[in-house]
Amino acid sequence: MGDNTLGTLFKITSFGESHGKLVGIIIDGTPAGIELNLEFIQNELDKRRPGQSDLTTPRKEKDKVKIVSGIFNDKTTGAPICLYIENKDIDSSEYEKFKNILRPSHVDYSALKKYGGYSDYRGSGRFSGRITAGFVMAGAITKQILSKYNISIFAYTEAIGRVLDKDVYDSIPFKELLKQRENSPVRSINQKKSEEMEQLVKEIKIQNDSIGGIVKCIIRGFPAGKGGPIFNSLESKISHAIFSIPGIKGIEFGAGFRATKMKGSEHNDPWILKEGKVVTTKNSSGGIIGGISTGMPIEFTIAVKPPATISIPQKTVNIDKLENVEFEFTGRHDPCIVPRVVPVVEAITAVVLLDSLLIEGFIPKVFEST
Amino acid sequence: MGDNTLGTLFKITSFGESHGKLVGIIIDGTPAGIELNLEFIQNELDKRRPGQSDLTTPRKEKDKVKIVSGIFNDKTTGAPICLYIENKDIDSSEYEKFKNILRPSHVDYSALKKYGGYSDYRGSGRFSGRITAGFVMAGAITKQILSKYNISIFAYTEAIGRVLDKDVYDSIPFKELLKQRENSPVRSINQKKSEEMEQLVKEIKIQNDSIGGIVKCIIRGFPAGKGGPIFNSLESKISHAIFSIPGIKGIEFGAGFRATKMKGSEHNDPWILKEGKVVTTKNSSGGIIGGISTGMPIEFTIAVKPPATISIPQKTVNIDKLENVEFEFTGRHDPCIVPRVVPVVEAITAVVLLDSLLIEGFIPKVFEST
Amino acid sequence: MGDNTLGTLFKITSFGESHGKLVGIIIDGTPAGIELNLEFIQNELDKRRPGQSDLTTPRKEKDKVKIVSGIFNDKTTGAPICLYIENKDIDSSEYEKFKNILRPSHVDYSALKKYGGYSDYRGSGRFSGRITAGFVMAGAITKQILSKYNISIFAYTEAIGRVLDKDVYDSIPFKELLKQRENSPVRSINQKKSEEMEQLVKEIKIQNDSIGGIVKCIIRGFPAGKGGPIFNSLESKISHAIFSIPGIKGIEFGAGFRATKMKGSEHNDPWILKEGKVVTTKNSSGGIIGGISTGMPIEFTIAVKPPATISIPQKTVNIDKLENVEFEFTGRHDPCIVPRVVPVVEAITAVVLLDSLLIEGFIPKVFEST
Amino acid sequence: MGDNTLGTLFKITSFGESHGKLVGIIIDGTPAGIELNLEFIQNELDKRRPGQSDLTTPRKEKDKVKIVSGIFNDKTTGAPICLYIENKDIDSSEYEKFKNILRPSHVDYSALKKYGGYSDYRGSGRFSGRITAGFVMAGAITKQILSKYNISIFAYTEAIGRVLDKDVYDSIPFKELLKQRENSPVRSINQKKSEEMEQLVKEIKIQNDSIGGIVKCIIRGFPAGKGGPIFNSLESKISHAIFSIPGIKGIEFGAGFRATKMKGSEHNDPWILKEGKVVTTKNSSGGIIGGISTGMPIEFTIAVKPPATISIPQKTVNIDKLENVEFEFTGRHDPCIVPRVVPVVEAITAVVLLDSLLIEGFIPKVFEST
Repeated sequence: MGDNTLGTLFKITSFGESHGKLVGIIIDGTPAGIELNLEFIQNELDKRRPGQSDLTTPRKEKDKVKIVSGIFNDKTTGAPICLYIENKDIDSSEYEKFKNILRPSHVDYSALKKYGGYSDYRGSGRFSGRITAGFVMAGAITKQILSKYNISIFAYTEAIGRVLDKDVYDSIPFKELLKQRENSPVRSINQKKSEEMEQLVKEIKIQNDSIGGIVKCIIRGFPAGKGGPIFNSLESKISHAIFSIPGIKGIEFGAGFRATKMKGSEHNDPWILKEGKVVTTKNSSGGIIGGISTGMPIEFTIAVKPPATISIPQKTVNIDKLENVEFEFTGRHDPCIVPRVVPVVEAITAVVLLDSLLIEGFIPKVFEST
Repeated sequence: MGDNTLGTLFKITSFGESHGKLVGIIIDGTPAGIELNLEFIQNELDKRRPGQSDLTTPRKEKDKVKIVSGIFNDKTTGAPICLYIENKDIDSSEYEKFKNILRPSHVDYSALKKYGGYSDYRGSGRFSGRITAGFVMAGAITKQILSKYNISIFAYTEAIGRVLDKDVYDSIPFKELLKQRENSPVRSINQKKSEEMEQLVKEIKIQNDSIGGIVKCIIRGFPAGKGGPIFNSLESKISHAIFSIPGIKGIEFGAGFRATKMKGSEHNDPWILKEGKVVTTKNSSGGIIGGISTGMPIEFTIAVKPPATISIPQKTVNIDKLENVEFEFTGRHDPCIVPRVVPVVEAITAVVLLDSLLIEGFIPKVFEST
Repeated sequence: MGDNTLGTLFKITSFGESHGKLVGIIIDGTPAGIELNLEFIQNELDKRRPGQSDLTTPRKEKDKVKIVSGIFNDKTTGAPICLYIENKDIDSSEYEKFKNILRPSHVDYSALKKYGGYSDYRGSGRFSGRITAGFVMAGAITKQILSKYNISIFAYTEAIGRVLDKDVYDSIPFKELLKQRENSPVRSINQKKSEEMEQLVKEIKIQNDSIGGIVKCIIRGFPAGKGGPIFNSLESKISHAIFSIPGIKGIEFGAGFRATKMKGSEHNDPWILKEGKVVTTKNSSGGIIGGISTGMPIEFTIAVKPPATISIPQKTVNIDKLENVEFEFTGRHDPCIVPRVVPVVEAITAVVLLDSLLIEGFIPKVFEST
Repeated sequence: MGDNTLGTLFKITSFGESHGKLVGIIIDGTPAGIELNLEFIQNELDKRRPGQSDLTTPRKEKDKVKIVSGIFNDKTTGAPICLYIENKDIDSSEYEKFKNILRPSHVDYSALKKYGGYSDYRGSGRFSGRITAGFVMAGAITKQILSKYNISIFAYTEAIGRVLDKDVYDSIPFKELLKQRENSPVRSINQKKSEEMEQLVKEIKIQNDSIGGIVKCIIRGFPAGKGGPIFNSLESKISHAIFSIPGIKGIEFGAGFRATKMKGSEHNDPWILKEGKVVTTKNSSGGIIGGISTGMPIEFTIAVKPPATISIPQKTVNIDKLENVEFEFTGRHDPCIVPRVVPVVEAITAVVLLDSLLIEGFIPKVFEST
């Protein structure tokens, strides 16, 4: 109930369905007086759009963003901003055909139990990855606000299947990483690994199967002392938001699960004075200690499961006839959603961080240009 | 700001400091009419208590729970329940000595930036693991409520350092697992691994170092169709709560990070009719799809970092003098907190799940005994 | 910040501006499976629409409701419902002319201080009464849900200026009251008073002035034992929502301010058994005691101030030139908004009450028709 | 469910019962570094304490405040502050005797329906006015914080029964008003009216009856541009909090219900430049327009009903035997609670205003003394 609003002072409210009229987002709590680059919003959205390459679903959507409130004279007014994209290239035939089939690892059964069979099942309705287009639009505005305070967020594909990019990019400016990433159809920043990942996705596609992967996200410029202990820790807030992205099954900050095998003497990040600033010599903590930012880059990785939709025969249940059946989905789908998750992770992280900074009073309610 | 309350209909509010007068919790939203077993609360608390074995901190606290509101004639009234334990065996000398030293991977610097030097640093104040005693008291009440609806939660130590218990316990009743666990000083349910883990912790202790580990949590009996898509997914709510436990750096549901290497055809959980019930033949999803419960056991594992406090010389900064220093903590501390995290994970998970079930209207506001 | 969402489990999010593209509302938390009468939504909206009679603003808007999400096969799905109306008959000329004039008792100055001059001032932007069209759309859906549980809400004009309808309508069915009300251009249910009120508004209009009044709201069929003590009292929640309607300056429940002059022996409502039911012989409490419903009708009245916009010369300040000026607004406006507030009060009250009933678990998350 | 926490960034959580062990409050979100005057907290509490004069209930409670967390070196740390008073002079005999009697205009029936008979009925339990001692403690801390920003809150008894103090005190410093008020056992600031009110209360007491009244509250120094339109209007937030005080049945801001009889030309508050500042020549708006502060004093009055407890025979129902009965309460009680409501109104208003100022970023999270 009331599941579609996130945030304390900076709130986003998601609405729309995959095969309904539109998918949209309301952003509430934006500081007033910020001049927005509307083209940037469209660009961000294009990164999530289906049909970008032959590695993604063949659904073709132009996904042109419309903004219908909250902007006046090209600037934010402080009022809620409503953005949406329309759904055009809809093909619901497969969903009608299989509406009584419990697709394995799809939300069919849990949604049935929750909504009593009334939810819009076409294209997975509210459970579709398409809903995250709203997050991306919200994030595109949020990132512009954060950038005015020199906070930037960058995510990339760290792994697809067993192809893992172990490189560390600490000293490379995001601008360069971004250039690399935009050259890669899988959103890798490592050219060699990118090719291997591409190859893997193509093979998986030929097999009519799907594959998972890992997205890494890095935030630079986030000030120290923000966030909170206990129930509003930065990890709590970020993970809460990240798990609202369909298909995410894990998150770890800094050394994460590797930390479980470490000794304290290995894991601990020593403080040091460097050019008058207090920094750590390494960043096992991922920029967060006690739920509060340390001033070091915030770093986390997330586990993306393989898409549930595959075109291989699967055993499952027909819930109407209550019998075990074999089933094969023949509609269009993504063999790997990792590359398309990348911009979504950046977006939703931006939203959470702006909320934290507004709570802290770090960002004023009216933007003062300098 | 306002960081210490969690929940929508079932709220817990945490208060107190490690070296202050007490550590407590307010539970608000409990259904009325539930007869509580007060001894059970004390028992749960005893599992988290310091000084249980020679593997934990030598701080000796009896931690006797006091309940000062919300119970009348031994039953819940629906009013807020306030519980607390007093702090008695306090030794703040080490903290006074080092109050200008930024202890590596401790919250000293981030807290300084957030609270301007006014926070109670003694025993890490609000950032102490001792705060989770409040979670355990809340959880002990919550678990009793859930058990009336046949929902039970069980956590155990899956790994300490590199000692990993890979066994699967799907078909074994919690009652038996609990018996095993209570025999193990490290809260393992695998006797052989338990001995190895113990041995490891003892070695680490001798080295004056610390070690991390993994806790696994399983929930049985949780009904299908609870939770929600988007911002109130069960993964969102559980991870939010789990990251409020000090020292947690990762969480994964079901196959989690292993899923990133899987194909859809491997990962997908086929539905099957079994004795008239709709179940899956395996549980890669960890009992949650689309943020909503499937009716299968909910399963997740969490990464516990090695405690930051070690008695080995470390390089760091004196923030008062603004100079690089070497520092060695000589106070008492835990070489490994994993075993003590186990009851905390159970507790906070119980709190989140009860909130979800109250939101769904699954649990009534007044308990009707049958 | 984040001011535009109301509710705990049943949430509404308001967006749009008076002279922007549209005015809309998102409803989140609707039970699934409810068949909606879309015509009813339009009818409710028509009651708030400008240009209904020569007593209201001459702004002509068709205000055709559009629903773009959350409905599938004519039923609610449990997903957020987005409704909006477009703005068409916009005339912003007056607002451009006076944008540096602080209109007396208008939001110009307080908005300037809050939003730094970036808010959309045309037609009062977010502060316009037109925003309440969103409330009415949400309320029209909510009232349909409540009516399935035999809960009905009725509001009417109790006073305009000094013309006060003192009659009590306790024993008359809402159906009849509604018929009366729909015959009255001022939404009175007392024919004689209606004529006096009309006469008064016409005089006020000729004077280019405006006038206030009182709206009374009655809820029948609301079950006993809902609401809560302390911070979620029904009075707290209703008043919170009511004061979000522009122009409201007071609210009282039951005897309200009259109770301040009463003795306990006069004010107290004795309980009595009547046909096996526990009821009170009178209802000074307005159906709420201790913040919780008694099962008697919930009753409250609200104070509506005279519209600030009048076409009479007024002294005030030019904020740009920082000088005292005289000013006369010549645009279109309402001489009295009381009749148009009536449907808004019903709507927002419905929203609050449904939220309370969902919190209580009184209304299930999936509608079961009988 | 979860009814006992109020606030967004500055949260208070109420707990305890009238005849339980204690009554307390948790304050969460206090800026760090504020030196508190603990004596002031006790003084504020003494103003609400029973047994202050022969006009109030003869219950004798010393009500000594205890602070058990959140303060370190006499300053706020930013951590939750827990304060409580113990219950000592408890006499529950009357409540045991009448526990099946539905006391007229008491919460007995609505609480029974909500809590199924499990709530603590002794001394009205959670519904007792004694719960507001927690509000007063929270307010005493909040007022100290607000005073550092030159914001002060003053409430007084404007009416008891028909004895109404019509005087206006706009130009008199609060310091003087406070001196007057503290001389009056009924908390009037008009010596003549005070005597009349006292006389009235004494007569009512002899009659074993009770009487209502009006409390007026004025806030000076509150900055312009704070609050918000729509759902977080200052009126919404203040009224929400005020109606959490037992016995309140109405609230009006500025001209309030008088505004309903006014023309716009009478009601409107013209802006004027006065010594370089933008102010209004009068304050019908009560310092709030469009839900946002104007910089003028915030003013509201509240309706306090006569206490339900009287020692006069009343007809009502025995809910156990399901029969109509006559009943006469013989326990101790207040003939008029208006004077004791005065400090509670100040307190809860302070809490709401501080929350708004933290949301606006007007008050920093760490106090910087100057």
